[in-house]
Amino acid sequence: MRVSIYSYQQLYSFALNVFLKMGCSNEDATLATSVLLSADLRGIDSHGIARLVGYVRLWEAGRINATPNIKMIHETPSTAVVDGDKGLGLVVAPKAMQIAIEKAKLVGTGWVSVKNSNHFGIAGYHAMMALSQDMIGIAMTNASALVAPTYAAEKMLGTNPIAVAVPAGNEAPFVADFATTTAANGKLEIAQRNNQSIPTGWAQDAKGNPTNDAHILKKGGALLPLGSEKELGSHKGYALGSIVDIFSGVLSGASFGPWAPPFPSYVPMPDNMPGEGLGHFLGAMRIDAFRPAQDFKSNMDIWLNRFRNAKPVQRQEQVFVAGDIERKLEAERMKEGIPIVADVQSDLDALSTKFDLPF
Amino acid sequence: MRVSIYSYQQLYSFALNVFLKMGCSNEDATLATSVLLSADLRGIDSHGIARLVGYVRLWEAGRINATPNIKMIHETPSTAVVDGDKGLGLVVAPKAMQIAIEKAKLVGTGWVSVKNSNHFGIAGYHAMMALSQDMIGIAMTNASALVAPTYAAEKMLGTNPIAVAVPAGNEAPFVADFATTTAANGKLEIAQRNNQSIPTGWAQDAKGNPTNDAHILKKGGALLPLGSEKELGSHKGYALGSIVDIFSGVLSGASFGPWAPPFPSYVPMPDNMPGEGLGHFLGAMRIDAFRPAQDFKSNMDIWLNRFRNAKPVQRQEQVFVAGDIERKLEAERMKEGIPIVADVQSDLDALSTKFDLPF
Repeated sequence: MRVSIYSYQQLYSFALNVFLKMGCSNEDATLATSVLLSADLRGIDSHGIARLVGYVRLWEAGRINATPNIKMIHETPSTAVVDGDKGLGLVVAPKAMQIAIEKAKLVGTGWVSVKNSNHFGIAGYHAMMALSQDMIGIAMTNASALVAPTYAAEKMLGTNPIAVAVPAGNEAPFVADFATTTAANGKLEIAQRNNQSIPTGWAQDAKGNPTNDAHILKKGGALLPLGSEKELGSHKGYALGSIVDIFSGVLSGASFGPWAPPFPSYVPMPDNMPGEGLGHFLGAMRIDAFRPAQDFKSNMDIWLNRFRNAKPVQRQEQVFVAGDIERKLEAERMKEGIPIVADVQSDLDALSTKFDLPF
Repeated sequence: MRVSIYSYQQLYSFALNVFLKMGCSNEDATLATSVLLSADLRGIDSHGIARLVGYVRLWEAGRINATPNIKMIHETPSTAVVDGDKGLGLVVAPKAMQIAIEKAKLVGTGWVSVKNSNHFGIAGYHAMMALSQDMIGIAMTNASALVAPTYAAEKMLGTNPIAVAVPAGNEAPFVADFATTTAANGKLEIAQRNNQSIPTGWAQDAKGNPTNDAHILKKGGALLPLGSEKELGSHKGYALGSIVDIFSGVLSGASFGPWAPPFPSYVPMPDNMPGEGLGHFLGAMRIDAFRPAQDFKSNMDIWLNRFRNAKPVQRQEQVFVAGDIERKLEAERMKEGIPIVADVQSDLDALSTKFDLPF
């Protein structure tokens, strides 16, 4: 498959201008672009500029509001609920995370559940906002249903990611960011583009049987929760995806489960939605609300150093800590550019024409 | 294998008297017994009365203090660190959870990290303490290292469970409680007792290769994180186990990673432990810190009802929600008694002799 390389700045300028053409304020367009492109830098290509056309289509369909009135509708000293007013999740989520951080400054921790939002890019971006504040950051979101619970023959949950970012001292921080499924949907899309089959354990067919068909989701199949099958603990992945759905959707008053709003604008909204839009859950815990930050960080350095130097199995060179591979990619891609596959290139070309923007 | 049936009351009286003989106060012995036996009721037999002899041995070895001075050593409005003073985790954890609940009453949420503790029974007990308060409860703990990170040929993490309990209205609540591994160590112990092999994906041998040997942990092998192998997402299970270790161990000042104190009293304590004892992390979130409890509960009822009535795959009758199977067992065992296998029976007989207690 043909791949072109663009610099971060090239993609940044283009995405920024697209968000401005949608009518976003300068501040919001800048924020949305930073969040969106953090995915491309970190190698989570499915959640980066490849999704720009999807956001535009949702905006055209009236499902995304480019000038939302994002407001806190309920709060206590350590909690808040934010109504995203159908805004871009790329804008709503970091603003909600900022509220969590401010609350943590005052009372030790802050927890914000968000309703009436949309896809928020990579969870890791929002969690990592806490790092520079000497806080642990937590971010999760529900998403349109692609995943079958253990023993179910229906799609009931999104890939519902969880991100947790933990600051350290001299060592690079711990940054986990993962879908609560065996494989993210982006991995199936890559297999589809390359006409490859998928490993057993990623998906099931419409009857709940194992499959290697990368196109199975269009045929009534579903992604599988982390664990793949009951005997290997898929009920645990199903429980994790459920927790994300409840914290993000039910706690905020967003829609949830099979009623979560779909990302593709051509998919009709579910009937009888029990809440408003997509939901997120964002948390910040101040380290020194537990122990002196320097003590914690020096212990985290011990932790990180020990795990990074664990004895590897024979066929591997090294044991990684969550976030290590993404951090390495981020440095590489910032320097050497970001690969854009032909399908995404043609989407971006179409946006260039639509908005009369050079690309 | 021979199995005897005992009533809950029979086991309760015996365990209570053993804790009293260890020198626990009446209050602590009662609490410890309730926590311990909640595992037997809920079918998590490896964490119930089967472990009583292990607690006694740790007490005899001076690693458990039966009369601890459990105290809060640091706090903010929404957080605390508790020093368990080497007490039984069965006592320390519910007391710490109570602090989390009290903080949530005042500022919306409460988060308590605990150091210098010991094995705390099932995580689900502590999380479920929040339910009657119209709160979401969260509990996790680190544990002695049995699990190899993805690509590692060393045991570095415990089975590090996570429990989350969510109240509902008319439907039975959501109660997730799971090890962050493919299979809990208790499942290997069952296979060992029955001379059975274990499924591929539960464990690896000393070199990191797949194995079906239920005795592999004694031969340098390790349990595998949820996901089993990299291609099926084991790096996600490894990240989850790491998060539990960091929240429970590093945030509190407990020991962590490969330095977590071992449960078997004959295993020497690790050298150069970076903290004190085992660590837990307990959280409580008041529902109405986010939205009116009745609105939340009626939405949870919709959620639970929809998932419990999801279309099952052909070979299954029903889709379960986290906690359903344990709740059913609890009702059955309270009525019909609790099965005790011969190995556990002989441990209890030995305790009966040691403490001159009828059983």
